[in-house]
Amino acid sequence: VTDRELIDIGALAARIEETNGAAAAEAQRLLDAKTKPLRSLGRLEDLVCQLAAIRGVGGPLATLPKKAIVVMGADHGVAAEGVSAYPQEVTGQMLLNFARGGAAINVLAGQAGARVVVVDMGVAYPPPPRPEIQDRRIGPGTANFTCGPAMTRAEALAALSTGAALADALACDGVGLIGIGDMGIGNTTASSALAAVFTGAPPEEVTGRGTGIDDAAFRRKVDVVRRGLTVNRPDPSDAVDALAKVGGFEIAGLAGVVLGAAAARVPVVLDGFITSVAALAAVRLAPNASGYLIASHRSVEAGHRLVLQALGKMPLLDLDLRLGEGTGAALAMLLVDSALAISAEMATFESAGVSDAAKR
Amino acid sequence: VTDRELIDIGALAARIEETNGAAAAEAQRLLDAKTKPLRSLGRLEDLVCQLAAIRGVGGPLATLPKKAIVVMGADHGVAAEGVSAYPQEVTGQMLLNFARGGAAINVLAGQAGARVVVVDMGVAYPPPPRPEIQDRRIGPGTANFTCGPAMTRAEALAALSTGAALADALACDGVGLIGIGDMGIGNTTASSALAAVFTGAPPEEVTGRGTGIDDAAFRRKVDVVRRGLTVNRPDPSDAVDALAKVGGFEIAGLAGVVLGAAAARVPVVLDGFITSVAALAAVRLAPNASGYLIASHRSVEAGHRLVLQALGKMPLLDLDLRLGEGTGAALAMLLVDSALAISAEMATFESAGVSDAAKR
Repeated sequence: VTDRELIDIGALAARIEETNGAAAAEAQRLLDAKTKPLRSLGRLEDLVCQLAAIRGVGGPLATLPKKAIVVMGADHGVAAEGVSAYPQEVTGQMLLNFARGGAAINVLAGQAGARVVVVDMGVAYPPPPRPEIQDRRIGPGTANFTCGPAMTRAEALAALSTGAALADALACDGVGLIGIGDMGIGNTTASSALAAVFTGAPPEEVTGRGTGIDDAAFRRKVDVVRRGLTVNRPDPSDAVDALAKVGGFEIAGLAGVVLGAAAARVPVVLDGFITSVAALAAVRLAPNASGYLIASHRSVEAGHRLVLQALGKMPLLDLDLRLGEGTGAALAMLLVDSALAISAEMATFESAGVSDAAKR
Repeated sequence: VTDRELIDIGALAARIEETNGAAAAEAQRLLDAKTKPLRSLGRLEDLVCQLAAIRGVGGPLATLPKKAIVVMGADHGVAAEGVSAYPQEVTGQMLLNFARGGAAINVLAGQAGARVVVVDMGVAYPPPPRPEIQDRRIGPGTANFTCGPAMTRAEALAALSTGAALADALACDGVGLIGIGDMGIGNTTASSALAAVFTGAPPEEVTGRGTGIDDAAFRRKVDVVRRGLTVNRPDPSDAVDALAKVGGFEIAGLAGVVLGAAAARVPVVLDGFITSVAALAAVRLAPNASGYLIASHRSVEAGHRLVLQALGKMPLLDLDLRLGEGTGAALAMLLVDSALAISAEMATFESAGVSDAAKR
């Protein structure tokens, strides 16, 4: 990435518009005319209104949105501290699995009618080049943040820029709904550190079991997060600083996807803990981005609840998922489509000749 | 319905087999070999295992199941007590709306790839005959249960038989997943009365706001439920008695669908409060039927939580729905398909060449 190719993140953030409350109100008015008790579709109606606010148009979509799930993979120097149940080789192996279509996200994206966009943001053991894997490597994994910053500020900005450019390209290609997913051995540790920075919560409250570690490894993980914060002193008021010091290439990249999508008025479906932390970083850079975010599920990761609270988002699903890859986002896209179909296809009391209690 | 056509409900209930725990264990073993941390797909994995237990086969399905949502409509004499925000004409009008494809259930069933089977179990104002509406009328609505039983025991058995025969016909037609839905002005009142009978909870704990009523109407509704129980003294140990005295034609019919489906080893996706009460009636008649039930969502109706507890079921969704018609069942079918696709399509650690922590 040369300097000239970089998107100015500050300028991009400033370009993100507030979503349109009047369009949301108009969408609710149209829903209220349909043959169902007022508000009886609950959170599906909220979804319809949010999507209208994002489009800036109260009326329904003629067709369901074209969908993509951006899955970014990268490795983490902090994995050397023994914070994961899996070896670091798995990150690159899983990117190959995504490219071949064998992973959970491939299956669930297929069910949701979403294309999977696989991005290597910097894995330690890259798979052989394949057309299905976009090479956007910032480096061969981050440095171990217990010894110093995970990456430079320039690298964090490059990762943000990469994600933003990718989202913009998808929007230009007609994608109207973007899901985000992550892959990176050690990335729940980086996410816990970022969650601690952004929410102010102590490390033990935002650290979880990741892919599945025992009690000793869990205590080590909390300690690793604490050391990362002590050694680096990330600035809570500067999200780029936090991403650089204790983040990851894929986390910064996904924050960039959120910014790029929001700037293009495309809604973003979050996945679990890692993607929500990335979204929180994006919202700290551009508060208006919040209106473009849809929380898909509540992960079993301990910190996820606090991060969703900080985002002011209530997830649609609570299925004890803890996989990542964008799997929860893919499941939530099914609900988004159902909500949009309701707004486009249902009859009104008048058109169906049904007596309306609301009008009595 | 003549006597000869009636299915013997006791014999049907006795024919329902326990689901197969060994098949569930085999399904979990197969899931554990796939490229994801153990149990990281949480409740989707539970779904896969339950469906394997129902089939009696641990291996995946080659194709996703053919789906139908049975929506039964009927009227309730108790509507005369002013317990609903809508006039009784709406029940028949909505059946017509279902037949024409304009209702929420048509849209959501379409998204889930499910056929909608519309059944008139006895509405007060029947729409003109149409091929899309099956005429299985037990009568022109039930009697007002505050003055005596809602229906005779023979009518309750006829309604159960009707539902069971319908489920059996769907199973013979290759349907592998049946959702159930309800339509009936006044039917949350009947369901609250049944919930009180089956769970032993006092009327005020199992009575909610239905389609949307004010405080005065709510107090009236609780009182109506209490009077129904006092006047009729339904026998908690005899579900047919309870269905007859304070139930409804569609509620008994849906209980029959559950029994017929379970006897044919077809899983049943519940919707909200009314269908869950129907399922609880079925489980009281045939405890083994419980293994065939999938709870779709937690309704905002007050009694639903207690009924789900009595069924021992945790719903997949919690979206503040309170519409009925089978809408929650349709949404949950999307998750069922996604779970089944996972079990059929995901690569294993071995086939994908990914290092497996579980094997280290």
